[in-house]
Amino acid sequence: MNGKLVQSIREAIALSGLKSGMSISFHHHLRNGDYTLNRVMNEIAAMGIRELTLNASSIFDTHAPLEEHIRNHVVTKINTNYMSAALGHRISEGLMDAPVDFRTHGGRPRDIALGNTPIDVAFIAAPTADCAGNCSGKYGPSACGSLGYAFPDAMYAKKVIVITDNLVPYPMKGWSIPEIYVDYVVEVDAIGNPAGIVSGTTRITRDPVGLIMAETAVKVIQHSGLLQDGFSFQTGAGGASLAAASFLKDVMLRDGIRGSFASGGITGYLVDMLSAGCFESLMDVQCFDLKAVESIRTNPAHQEISAMQYASPAAASAVVDKLDVVILGATEVDTDFNVNVHTDSSGMIMGGSGGHSDTAAGAKLAMIIAPLFRARLPIVTDHVSCISTPGRDIDVLVTQRGVAVNPKNQELMLRLKDAGLPVIPIDELKTMAECITGKPNKPVRSGRTVANVIYRDGTLMDTIQSV
Amino acid sequence: MNGKLVQSIREAIALSGLKSGMSISFHHHLRNGDYTLNRVMNEIAAMGIRELTLNASSIFDTHAPLEEHIRNHVVTKINTNYMSAALGHRISEGLMDAPVDFRTHGGRPRDIALGNTPIDVAFIAAPTADCAGNCSGKYGPSACGSLGYAFPDAMYAKKVIVITDNLVPYPMKGWSIPEIYVDYVVEVDAIGNPAGIVSGTTRITRDPVGLIMAETAVKVIQHSGLLQDGFSFQTGAGGASLAAASFLKDVMLRDGIRGSFASGGITGYLVDMLSAGCFESLMDVQCFDLKAVESIRTNPAHQEISAMQYASPAAASAVVDKLDVVILGATEVDTDFNVNVHTDSSGMIMGGSGGHSDTAAGAKLAMIIAPLFRARLPIVTDHVSCISTPGRDIDVLVTQRGVAVNPKNQELMLRLKDAGLPVIPIDELKTMAECITGKPNKPVRSGRTVANVIYRDGTLMDTIQSV
Repeated sequence: MNGKLVQSIREAIALSGLKSGMSISFHHHLRNGDYTLNRVMNEIAAMGIRELTLNASSIFDTHAPLEEHIRNHVVTKINTNYMSAALGHRISEGLMDAPVDFRTHGGRPRDIALGNTPIDVAFIAAPTADCAGNCSGKYGPSACGSLGYAFPDAMYAKKVIVITDNLVPYPMKGWSIPEIYVDYVVEVDAIGNPAGIVSGTTRITRDPVGLIMAETAVKVIQHSGLLQDGFSFQTGAGGASLAAASFLKDVMLRDGIRGSFASGGITGYLVDMLSAGCFESLMDVQCFDLKAVESIRTNPAHQEISAMQYASPAAASAVVDKLDVVILGATEVDTDFNVNVHTDSSGMIMGGSGGHSDTAAGAKLAMIIAPLFRARLPIVTDHVSCISTPGRDIDVLVTQRGVAVNPKNQELMLRLKDAGLPVIPIDELKTMAECITGKPNKPVRSGRTVANVIYRDGTLMDTIQSV
Repeated sequence: MNGKLVQSIREAIALSGLKSGMSISFHHHLRNGDYTLNRVMNEIAAMGIRELTLNASSIFDTHAPLEEHIRNHVVTKINTNYMSAALGHRISEGLMDAPVDFRTHGGRPRDIALGNTPIDVAFIAAPTADCAGNCSGKYGPSACGSLGYAFPDAMYAKKVIVITDNLVPYPMKGWSIPEIYVDYVVEVDAIGNPAGIVSGTTRITRDPVGLIMAETAVKVIQHSGLLQDGFSFQTGAGGASLAAASFLKDVMLRDGIRGSFASGGITGYLVDMLSAGCFESLMDVQCFDLKAVESIRTNPAHQEISAMQYASPAAASAVVDKLDVVILGATEVDTDFNVNVHTDSSGMIMGGSGGHSDTAAGAKLAMIIAPLFRARLPIVTDHVSCISTPGRDIDVLVTQRGVAVNPKNQELMLRLKDAGLPVIPIDELKTMAECITGKPNKPVRSGRTVANVIYRDGTLMDTIQSV
């Protein structure tokens, strides 16, 4: 069978020809339950391979052991779209010599496809695969649903290694990534911990502030002129965003509005909206919970999309460009509507754009939901400490104390004012916040760049300094 | 919606930037019912664009109007995998200055992917599409099932134009080719005549000679040692091949053998074998009849594969490499087991390899079924007038008068002799044929090359001379 099936991760690495100085990649659908990145990195380190570029679509707390590999110069460069606090804080403290290059979920496949970030060996954790490497995330004990972010890695890496804990006879039924891209297949005991794989979803918020914001968000959508048949929608998995989705569902059902699609990371709440007839289809680049996994496996209207189809500016078209409304979060928003989702109040890395910039650029209405302050720190500020998404792509900020509309969108401003929504200039929101919390101490920029924030078109958006 | 939807084929051609001297491509899933190639060529001719390279996966009799475009130098070079007699005979008479380059169904995507035959503008006739170009062959009034051969065109052409007669709202459900590759979408009244689209299948033969060959073919498979659980199989749509599939089904059901897959162009006979449990899956690059179209639309075990996954030597692996047995036809077989499927007895072009060479190279047992003679002309001969598939890739020739095993496969020879099958040296089959028909007059080679036969690895296998 073409000899793709090998006995161990180490054998696959050896056969792939991986050498010091090369580039390797991982996808993040197993999220905080992923075993694969750590296991592969341990093998690589034990083999004496060093100075690698690590291109991972996202890095979670479970990947904290990367710190050791960085200290030992096994990894000397990181390209990623998201990095949670465990490694992020170490990066902010100056762990690496070379800055981390942050991209977006659309910018990453763009730069892979264009050859700007070539991958020598891609490692694909696959919940089900056959001996030729046909593989899918929909089936098996470690099922994660969509494998959307792994498509560019499979298609463009020089060598592709599929690692699975559910090897099935050839040909598997319902593959996502076809054998034509796969060089080696390894069977292991487990690629991840199911409890961690689908832990992305929080519940709908019960916090009164979150509920007020969610209600206001839905009113903004209702009065935006976009909520009509054919409506398309994306939201994140935060508590207030999910509450907004839930309220939106009620409105759509009440008013008999039949949308076209919801996209992005998919939660059970969006699955419910599909089932209820609010949407014709879900366009799924990543499943956040078990209900989404079950749905993408069984409902043909719940469709897997690659990272390219989701958001790549190098694709002939992408789903994000057809979005009517996206609801996004923020750690900071400034009075120019620039949004920070990379760093926390102390300037430490604890996130990343993911699809933030991509959907904000593509959607007709890009909405930020954020409370005016968190833990006595204002969210609205003069200048964000890191521009993750430029203000030009943001239409409106919804807080519990009012709604600030970007002056670039005068039509929306008028519509919301006419509807009696509490529209307030963003400077007033900032003043309001500072009245309550006092003027915050901004983190001091040390001058040493620890990360670059690269916009989806490949241009440098901002840099992040060590703390 | 990114402005992909344009008003006419002509507008799409103009926007694509097609200029004289460029290369265009078409797929052949609409077979002899296809309207699209002729309509596009008429527009191109009317626009004054000339000296094009035409890369068509196959050319049928319905495409006979190409003759006029060749005479007018609108088309000056043809790359194809199959050409039926209407244009084939004109080519053999010396219609074109440049030789036609014949490839295989696997060699074509290989050379497209490697950049050896770049495509400037691909035209994809799509039975269903949305305004972004997501498209499929499974649905709509002109449904043809799989769009397998169109994948390389979509993925590698500089510009891709989807032409559909069933435009549905975005996002369509169950696309095969995603929007990321598609630049323009055109809606037309009809892309083809359904009666011609799925006319590829003949019925099981009632001819006693054909039935004898089919019975013998199944005995060869039974005694080859390959017919066991996990068995994989491909056969063409000729009457004797279909009869062999039908007899094989009976044997597999009687003996409780559960195969893994059948591949290739799929007929209702293979669908019946899937339904009966003879196979776990069908790997479908092309549907030959309505039953296959219905099956690929409704049965997840009936899976669409791209031309790359079917047969490309440039893919990391392909389905043909996992075949146990393939049954193939021939217009001539010579005593070195070389097979001709390109020309008829007078040396005129009337066919092509399609997947012939690809499956012969990949399968563990490549079987030719052919009568000893047809219309008083022997099939077995000293030297085929054109080598379509090299004898090294053929294991056995089944005729109504005996079975010739290629001496390279001694194990098969012993197995078939032990089983009491009428194994005869191929020279004796030739002599037998000539005793009945007389020694044939071989077509005279004029010396002018009208076609090159390019093997799946890109090497020149043979040439075809004008008649």
